[in-house]
Amino acid sequence: MRWPRKNDAASVEARRAAMGVTGGIVTSVDLEPFATAAESLVGVAVIPVSAVPLEVELGAYELGDDGAVEERGRATETVRVPLAHTEGGLTASMTRGALAAGTIRTYVLHDRITRASCFVCGDAADAIALASWVQSELPSMQEWLASSDDASLSKRARLRGVKTHVVGPMCHVLWQWTTGDAVGPNMMTRNSYALNMAYVMQRAPVKPERAVLEANMGGDKKPSAEFFQSGHGKTVLAEAFLTDEQIRRVLRTTAADLEALSWVGTHGAVASGMQSVAFTPASAIAAIFAATGQDLGMVGTSSMAHGTGRRVEGGLQASIRFGGLEVGTVGGGTTLPSARDWLASIGCAGSGTVYRFAQIVAAAALALEISASAAMATAGSENFFQAHHQRGGLR
Amino acid sequence: MRWPRKNDAASVEARRAAMGVTGGIVTSVDLEPFATAAESLVGVAVIPVSAVPLEVELGAYELGDDGAVEERGRATETVRVPLAHTEGGLTASMTRGALAAGTIRTYVLHDRITRASCFVCGDAADAIALASWVQSELPSMQEWLASSDDASLSKRARLRGVKTHVVGPMCHVLWQWTTGDAVGPNMMTRNSYALNMAYVMQRAPVKPERAVLEANMGGDKKPSAEFFQSGHGKTVLAEAFLTDEQIRRVLRTTAADLEALSWVGTHGAVASGMQSVAFTPASAIAAIFAATGQDLGMVGTSSMAHGTGRRVEGGLQASIRFGGLEVGTVGGGTTLPSARDWLASIGCAGSGTVYRFAQIVAAAALALEISASAAMATAGSENFFQAHHQRGGLR
Amino acid sequence: MRWPRKNDAASVEARRAAMGVTGGIVTSVDLEPFATAAESLVGVAVIPVSAVPLEVELGAYELGDDGAVEERGRATETVRVPLAHTEGGLTASMTRGALAAGTIRTYVLHDRITRASCFVCGDAADAIALASWVQSELPSMQEWLASSDDASLSKRARLRGVKTHVVGPMCHVLWQWTTGDAVGPNMMTRNSYALNMAYVMQRAPVKPERAVLEANMGGDKKPSAEFFQSGHGKTVLAEAFLTDEQIRRVLRTTAADLEALSWVGTHGAVASGMQSVAFTPASAIAAIFAATGQDLGMVGTSSMAHGTGRRVEGGLQASIRFGGLEVGTVGGGTTLPSARDWLASIGCAGSGTVYRFAQIVAAAALALEISASAAMATAGSENFFQAHHQRGGLR
Amino acid sequence: MRWPRKNDAASVEARRAAMGVTGGIVTSVDLEPFATAAESLVGVAVIPVSAVPLEVELGAYELGDDGAVEERGRATETVRVPLAHTEGGLTASMTRGALAAGTIRTYVLHDRITRASCFVCGDAADAIALASWVQSELPSMQEWLASSDDASLSKRARLRGVKTHVVGPMCHVLWQWTTGDAVGPNMMTRNSYALNMAYVMQRAPVKPERAVLEANMGGDKKPSAEFFQSGHGKTVLAEAFLTDEQIRRVLRTTAADLEALSWVGTHGAVASGMQSVAFTPASAIAAIFAATGQDLGMVGTSSMAHGTGRRVEGGLQASIRFGGLEVGTVGGGTTLPSARDWLASIGCAGSGTVYRFAQIVAAAALALEISASAAMATAGSENFFQAHHQRGGLR
Repeated sequence: MRWPRKNDAASVEARRAAMGVTGGIVTSVDLEPFATAAESLVGVAVIPVSAVPLEVELGAYELGDDGAVEERGRATETVRVPLAHTEGGLTASMTRGALAAGTIRTYVLHDRITRASCFVCGDAADAIALASWVQSELPSMQEWLASSDDASLSKRARLRGVKTHVVGPMCHVLWQWTTGDAVGPNMMTRNSYALNMAYVMQRAPVKPERAVLEANMGGDKKPSAEFFQSGHGKTVLAEAFLTDEQIRRVLRTTAADLEALSWVGTHGAVASGMQSVAFTPASAIAAIFAATGQDLGMVGTSSMAHGTGRRVEGGLQASIRFGGLEVGTVGGGTTLPSARDWLASIGCAGSGTVYRFAQIVAAAALALEISASAAMATAGSENFFQAHHQRGGLR
Repeated sequence: MRWPRKNDAASVEARRAAMGVTGGIVTSVDLEPFATAAESLVGVAVIPVSAVPLEVELGAYELGDDGAVEERGRATETVRVPLAHTEGGLTASMTRGALAAGTIRTYVLHDRITRASCFVCGDAADAIALASWVQSELPSMQEWLASSDDASLSKRARLRGVKTHVVGPMCHVLWQWTTGDAVGPNMMTRNSYALNMAYVMQRAPVKPERAVLEANMGGDKKPSAEFFQSGHGKTVLAEAFLTDEQIRRVLRTTAADLEALSWVGTHGAVASGMQSVAFTPASAIAAIFAATGQDLGMVGTSSMAHGTGRRVEGGLQASIRFGGLEVGTVGGGTTLPSARDWLASIGCAGSGTVYRFAQIVAAAALALEISASAAMATAGSENFFQAHHQRGGLR
Repeated sequence: MRWPRKNDAASVEARRAAMGVTGGIVTSVDLEPFATAAESLVGVAVIPVSAVPLEVELGAYELGDDGAVEERGRATETVRVPLAHTEGGLTASMTRGALAAGTIRTYVLHDRITRASCFVCGDAADAIALASWVQSELPSMQEWLASSDDASLSKRARLRGVKTHVVGPMCHVLWQWTTGDAVGPNMMTRNSYALNMAYVMQRAPVKPERAVLEANMGGDKKPSAEFFQSGHGKTVLAEAFLTDEQIRRVLRTTAADLEALSWVGTHGAVASGMQSVAFTPASAIAAIFAATGQDLGMVGTSSMAHGTGRRVEGGLQASIRFGGLEVGTVGGGTTLPSARDWLASIGCAGSGTVYRFAQIVAAAALALEISASAAMATAGSENFFQAHHQRGGLR
Repeated sequence: MRWPRKNDAASVEARRAAMGVTGGIVTSVDLEPFATAAESLVGVAVIPVSAVPLEVELGAYELGDDGAVEERGRATETVRVPLAHTEGGLTASMTRGALAAGTIRTYVLHDRITRASCFVCGDAADAIALASWVQSELPSMQEWLASSDDASLSKRARLRGVKTHVVGPMCHVLWQWTTGDAVGPNMMTRNSYALNMAYVMQRAPVKPERAVLEANMGGDKKPSAEFFQSGHGKTVLAEAFLTDEQIRRVLRTTAADLEALSWVGTHGAVASGMQSVAFTPASAIAAIFAATGQDLGMVGTSSMAHGTGRRVEGGLQASIRFGGLEVGTVGGGTTLPSARDWLASIGCAGSGTVYRFAQIVAAAALALEISASAAMATAGSENFFQAHHQRGGLR
């Protein structure tokens, strides 16, 4: 059969028939609200959502005129984080971690998203000249974007910087944007494309042979060292202080055992060539992303994390750093039913909430790190075994 | 409020009230079938599912007695792959890629999943002695596992090999398993734990100070060089031959442009320290995983891919290699409503279907790679821009 | 025996006696000129030096007031590069590559060397506050260094920038310097130490618990992704255009074969998790470093390279990019007999010559890349085999 | 002028004249003994050699018939290690580290060197079939090599294993060799070439399009994750126990400070994407390599190291692991005057000494690690600063 992309009822039905999908939960939901979310719809996927209460000290952040993230205040509250997943034990584990952590403090350090274009030139000399010119044109480019009346350009995606990197005849260009409360891949793509084609290719003193809109020198859904360090999205840090008492009572281990585990796990990560050194951040990221309409293709990149633990007077200090959480509270899947509801339940639906949301994600991930690590930290890791043995019945 | 993990109706209702989630699609589904999938349920997430028809030449594979994957035959069929996502344009793009690709051929190369334990010894001498002993004990361990009547042990998870790696006083041990049609983290965790505690810690000629069940020297939800190369799950390869005619007609570009794009993108990836060199495999992986009940926390690791393209007589040869697709067709989320339905729609529900499923995943990812790359390949990447500009209205 | 560090004749003699080194070439050289180069001298190592003529188009570069490398002109000349090594065939191979390359063009892109200090704070909040303060203090720190009358501080090492990176309670700080014609590790170490102890630890709004002078977040004799991209020393690019005629006549292969080899080698590098993607740059770097008194401990980091090759009209364009050549023409081993002589033979002894020297190093490495690659490029790589088989008698 | 490769006196003289090198230490040594070490000789490089006494507990190792390294006994002795370098302070620092370390214990874990060939096939199916065949042919290949009467083949280079890795149409093949007391690149190159051309290309069930002798999927003078883990050369571990007393008296710091430094440095390395996590192993490796005629192009790869430190009862346990020390005591530069003398001074000249030599290299590197780390470990790292400030007069 032909496979139209249309989402009228007859087309949906025809596709279902071709697939032999004729009933059940997957066809039980009206697709109309989802009609613009994807072509060639055939039904829905339903994932159970559970929730974990977290006590979080959140910063109130705003983006300054110069593109720096600025903290305006801090306040502590309890947030009940929705998690869409089917991994038995995960929700209970995060709950336990949150209990042990007490108040988790979170910080937003940086906010940029990049499109990694590349101009292929005739030779290295041209590529070098181009790079130098591109760097020097930044203010003019910003002005050009701001004053353009091209309706296809996004005013929300603002060019904040540019980084060039020449390899042979290639001039790689990382366009660095802020995109408000949206993740923003499409808005920055439109603007980057316009810069490439209507600015650089038209005005550059050396004419490139070829402009490539995305050429992999960033972290577009692929983890990279570049991304791990410089970030792609929101750079966020979460930290908790676990008292010896809570470690013993809630986690049933000791600060010394947790520190030993951290030492072993860090060196294991080094031995295996792991770029992201943590315990299981992706489990938390994926569960929140699935509940809140984030791009699940960004689970890998958003999960790149750098976890640390050290024994301090009276307990253990645990932290996790995310180079780039690619999260949004407007646009994309966040506007759809289900996603919007879960975002609203944590006060993160719509404008002005993205830094709040990013911090909640980081805090939830840290809570899970603490519990999952603790389960490994006792001599022989009896806890971890028991956690999976008793609760993980589905797997 | 206290936050019980129970999933009786009253508990669910209490949690919903605490979260202010009182209606809408997220509370519209009966949670009973999901009651064992997660603790502290509060509702569901609903993601629209679309589908793409792929023509795939699939191998029929079985696991040999020695743990090697053996091909029994090959056959071509059309599979309509379900994709759960909300990225406008993605489904249309994969559809276009599939059309251009014609028949995609897929291969399963290897099947192993590992638990990376570590024994911390008194010193390096002990760690070296332990590593040597562990290697030599493999047959005895296999026998011990097979003959055990401990009900907590999984007979489906079979120990196939062991790799040791000594760093200082640490003896890292990668237990290598096959787990049938399940991904198998929990079954191999149980068995690895038993090996660690009831075999190694009891019988080793040198007594380790500490056994850590998972110590990061593998790829447990964190991308790693180890994982990228040696695999974690199913190692699968997909390949397509694009004729010059299809490239021109369907993709509106040329083999020369595609080859140039591949060259630029590979070098961009190198410059950014990317471990996975491809274009956007995670978009496809995530969409299929979300539809079929796979572990979304494994999107990052399962998306690690090595894509290649080269011009050959009459067209372009494109391929993608996945070091480890962590997929299952039994156990975990795959048994739940929705997931089971979508798996069934592609003939992948239940035993004996996991290699089929792994190949379909790889083929779908290649179809998307082809289309997404093509959109970048023309001079100036006009296609890519237009694809996002016109269709990506949601973002 | 006690092992004094003194280099008087009697001490040298006593050490030689203890080692049983009583004659031969290793004791034949007067150690007096080397007396301050190392403690506990016992003799010399002698390495044969060969030479290869290169035709190079060199840029004339100067460091601008703002720390940017500026090109003042370009000129072509023949340089006969001294190589200290004992790998039979290497010199002949580079000679062949230089012949095939014709005029190699070189460019200096950037000049910075970093000391990666770290301040361990009480918690992440303090580390974040410190990072913010450090960034804002850059102008004051530059002024403070410039106006200091502390004789231990180097005026030649000039602070050009600072990059901070917070992980948990750690505030990593990359102090970025230019150091004139010296590599400059010691001068920037002195200045970084002074900044750490006399500026940051004294004036910071939050008092760090600990200052670590070098904490590995750079590329101090260890290859890193950070170093590969951002550089450590001189960032240099060399490029050549090989005509089809030269490829055939001198290299006995074809541009198509060279391009195929480059494709295979790049993907092999990706598969093995190689950070530096090239063929054998370290052979050239090491040979020049050994002849010219460079720090041989920096061979690994200085050899990190990104090589490219692509077929263009009439031949092949080959290039190599060095993220950071850690080279000097004053200070360290360059002032000693032997090193100084070889530097002088290529016009690189003393002030004002370091950019010239860096370009010569890159050009020599490219010449070797071309020849060594070509030897692998023919079907079956017959040339490579023959090169080693016939000439490598010593190995 | 023409640039002959000949090393007769007149040719040497003509080259010197062209270079303007007419006297001094660089022309003072008779080149005759070096005449076969390199083409186009022009003189010598002279590097001062100092020495450090180490107390080392060395294992006596032999290669078993199956290619495993077997320990036959252990004995402690004092070795005075020759170091060729010009970095003021380095020799004194290593001496101090050795004093603090007391007896360093060393272990050889593994011995393999690889040539990473690649066969480019028509498509992935062929590449997969070839890989499978190559794996199955190992015993036949070993027999074929052993029984060959081709004089160009080396009997010393013995094929021990083979690893294949398919990416698209490429079948990468890592031929794994032992090469006796030589590093062995040339002998294994000859044999690998013969396997590629006379065995695989002749007998394979599918005919590859192209055989590439070295295709970068290993660690041939370029650091890689593959190499860091699996090794290339001798895998060696060195360990020392530093008593609190020695730490205080010799290193003027504490075990707690050393442990804190190790924690910071390891996380700094992770943040910078460093593959080799240690402090300054390359300084030691380079100095010994330069004195003993090793291949200086292998300094980067041989320096890849994994260092650890942990506080234990009564002091600190420090260790370093080298994935692959590419060292030899026969062949290559080791046979030349100067190199041979320094090797002889530590009992490592000629057959049966390579494992001894590898252990001495590792022990020396650990001694330097200890001292250099200690200099960074005190609050503010005063020691490190003073070490460089007072002694590094040359830099």
